Amino acid sequence: MAKDKQFVTEITPQSEDFSRWYIDVIKKADLMDYSPVRGCIVFKPEGYEIWEHIQEEMNRRLKETGHRNAYFPVFIPESFFQKEKDHIEGFNPELPWVTEAGGDVLEERLAVRPTSETMFGHMYSKWIQSYRDLPVLINQWANVVRWEKRTLPFIRTTEFLWQEGHTAHENEQEAREETMRMLENYRDFVESYLAIPVVTGQKTPSERFAGAVDTYSIEAMMKDGRAVQAATSHYLGTKFAEAFEIQYLSRDNALEYVHTTSWGSTTRLIGSLIMVHGDDRGLALPPKVAPTQVIMVPIGPPKTREAVIGRTDELFKDLKNAGVRVRVDDRADVTPGWKFNEYEMRGVPIRLELGPRDMENGVCVLVSRISGEKKIVQQENLVGEVKAMLEQVHNEMYERALKFREDHFYSVDSLEEMKASMEDKRGFALAGWCGSEECESKVKEETGAGSRNIPFNPAETKTTCICCGKPAQHTVVFAKAY
Amino acid sequence: MAKDKQFVTEITPQSEDFSRWYIDVIKKADLMDYSPVRGCIVFKPEGYEIWEHIQEEMNRRLKETGHRNAYFPVFIPESFFQKEKDHIEGFNPELPWVTEAGGDVLEERLAVRPTSETMFGHMYSKWIQSYRDLPVLINQWANVVRWEKRTLPFIRTTEFLWQEGHTAHENEQEAREETMRMLENYRDFVESYLAIPVVTGQKTPSERFAGAVDTYSIEAMMKDGRAVQAATSHYLGTKFAEAFEIQYLSRDNALEYVHTTSWGSTTRLIGSLIMVHGDDRGLALPPKVAPTQVIMVPIGPPKTREAVIGRTDELFKDLKNAGVRVRVDDRADVTPGWKFNEYEMRGVPIRLELGPRDMENGVCVLVSRISGEKKIVQQENLVGEVKAMLEQVHNEMYERALKFREDHFYSVDSLEEMKASMEDKRGFALAGWCGSEECESKVKEETGAGSRNIPFNPAETKTTCICCGKPAQHTVVFAKAY
Repeated sequence: MAKDKQFVTEITPQSEDFSRWYIDVIKKADLMDYSPVRGCIVFKPEGYEIWEHIQEEMNRRLKETGHRNAYFPVFIPESFFQKEKDHIEGFNPELPWVTEAGGDVLEERLAVRPTSETMFGHMYSKWIQSYRDLPVLINQWANVVRWEKRTLPFIRTTEFLWQEGHTAHENEQEAREETMRMLENYRDFVESYLAIPVVTGQKTPSERFAGAVDTYSIEAMMKDGRAVQAATSHYLGTKFAEAFEIQYLSRDNALEYVHTTSWGSTTRLIGSLIMVHGDDRGLALPPKVAPTQVIMVPIGPPKTREAVIGRTDELFKDLKNAGVRVRVDDRADVTPGWKFNEYEMRGVPIRLELGPRDMENGVCVLVSRISGEKKIVQQENLVGEVKAMLEQVHNEMYERALKFREDHFYSVDSLEEMKASMEDKRGFALAGWCGSEECESKVKEETGAGSRNIPFNPAETKTTCICCGKPAQHTVVFAKAY
Repeated sequence: MAKDKQFVTEITPQSEDFSRWYIDVIKKADLMDYSPVRGCIVFKPEGYEIWEHIQEEMNRRLKETGHRNAYFPVFIPESFFQKEKDHIEGFNPELPWVTEAGGDVLEERLAVRPTSETMFGHMYSKWIQSYRDLPVLINQWANVVRWEKRTLPFIRTTEFLWQEGHTAHENEQEAREETMRMLENYRDFVESYLAIPVVTGQKTPSERFAGAVDTYSIEAMMKDGRAVQAATSHYLGTKFAEAFEIQYLSRDNALEYVHTTSWGSTTRLIGSLIMVHGDDRGLALPPKVAPTQVIMVPIGPPKTREAVIGRTDELFKDLKNAGVRVRVDDRADVTPGWKFNEYEMRGVPIRLELGPRDMENGVCVLVSRISGEKKIVQQENLVGEVKAMLEQVHNEMYERALKFREDHFYSVDSLEEMKASMEDKRGFALAGWCGSEECESKVKEETGAGSRNIPFNPAETKTTCICCGKPAQHTVVFAKAY
């Protein structure tokens, strides 16, 4: 039994095969399972709870900035997509269609929503009459579906979970401010909550959201050097307002179109934090979203077992009452060593060990999942020590991820250099770009790297296009991407 | 402007037309809007936030009883429904089918889930091997779709939101205990959180969930005397285990089928609390789920306005910091009287008035939405006074609803009496039943009343069947139902 269990904790090393490492880790840490529906996964409790902690904090922030949650239908009539031509072009190939229901063939096909700009647009046109009704600041937590050809658990699944914010404003300035406020909110959330450093910037026109005037993103570097777009924020101008006739009577008594924004983040955040922080021992979960922050393992010989477990339970209560997500593993049929490996693999930020000698001395041992540091702490100070170590683990994770990114962020001046950055050195490449779609595609063809975004604060400003050698209009981050 | 606003607060009296009253109230209190998709509504922020508070408390309770949340696919392959014959018979007429996706016709149609027993069953068969894996206690918050012919906002919509729990156990006893534990959890939640008294009992065989061995429900009485099934809990026996081959190696080393349960509650709880507590002035929201628990209205002449608003803001902060959901309406362009009506219509449990004389005296006025009681309280005791009044409002709402139900709960001994109970006296009828489906249908045909459940604690035990006059097997609650 114990032997079997040890067997399943074996994980392919990252250096051998990063993709296999990823699948090994998420399966063995019990975060998900494949479902019988193509490209759809089951979010198992250990994986889903990460999402719940993300939701709690995002909701707290959204409410602070005056946003409220609502819920709009999962079905969108086909005719809605036709109203905004870029939007239908972008999404049409990915839509699943309900054509029959309740025993009848439907007169109009219904798409299962891939995103909800059109439905929000339709409703906003009913709700918004006057400048007094603005701004409208609504967010939705929902499932969405995009019929993807290639899927990867959490990162790209046919059905996924997300939040989508949709706002309407009096003018361009306010809508653009909202777009940037939400982008900044994502940056801060992902960095300070998930310990993932990101590059904030603007998408190139070819990478814009279907129907947006401008799209902005935060881009994170995985441990194989690839990028994940962790969240996006779009200024939609009056495009959806015109398509859905969202007009209002302005302060000057004129009929005007509203300016809208949308912004979203998805369960791919779960995949991202795994690929940013995990290592060959398994998961490493950022403390703020870890389902279990502290795992308590009582140790020692059978004759002291009862006493040690009794004291463990008391300390458990102290931590739980202080709001720490803590669990005890006092099983007798697996060894402490097995448990240590198991919870390292599951990414629990702190292990707490308590043995008979610790009891005599009024101490216990905290072990950090990240640094491996062992700290002997007084039991009477336990809550404070645990909270401090959780903070420390978070900071170490962020610093490590940042260092990794800096070590794999290259300034390149030729396609050969860029190719090397992608293949041997695996990372992001900063390069000049003339602004033509032709050069952008050619870079991708030759090097495999797509444009991720035009960073707001590049380490360096490039002056010539890496492809055609003409003057650069922009300094762009290129990378292979998930 | 102010006049227009007053106009929209007009509401059809309940006694004139209860259905129109209901629609008037939910539209005017801004809880929902109709969507362009047949039978689907938009849950607007004021309506959706009620659901969020329901979710918070349900999650707290579910986690306390060892349940964890997860997320399973929205699509269910057609073949899954075929595996449990009662299940497909029950749900087939209501299913929407995805037949095309990503530009291709699908080989197998996918239903948009109406409930997830089959998907959970399929996954549990992969996850459960041994008695050590049991029990499995998983809950899911999700959208579900049932293609209903007649819809009513919140109460019966094509798409709705719910939680569905699915558990697997070693034997019948444990599964039955879980079934009853969750029923009791619903009863306690609905009574102590939504202030709705309910009748707990077992459904008759004809009213069982499609695929259940036994179905239990809690039934609430609306103010028009009709019943709403507020939640259900099902013992599924080994029916889904057999259909999906969920077998485990028992403690005796034998291969056994698990015993499963499922239980759910939906956004119809929102509709129920409106129809139980609302009155001709509008909504009356139970304090524990009200988006706004206290509305603060500063009053008095323009010259003291600034000072009064300043003090209002201080008191606002005290309340907010104490965890009270409080808002200030300090608009100058509408009168206090207009605001009083508006927030009564919106069902805010407590109104707080503060005027210049109150300021001098260090007091303010609390007004209960339910009793209309005005209480002058010391500002220094405000937090305690507000919390006590919120509790009091909750208790008053529960007592009123209970009294209403008792006044409309009839013991009947003939079909004529039952018919009168349904029509003139509008309520629930307690009657004897021989146990035959024939009598059950005949009662419905003749009186319009269906069996709601066989209550665990009937006020009285009936000895003869109300329909055929043979000895009664059960004492049943009959009512018209939503």
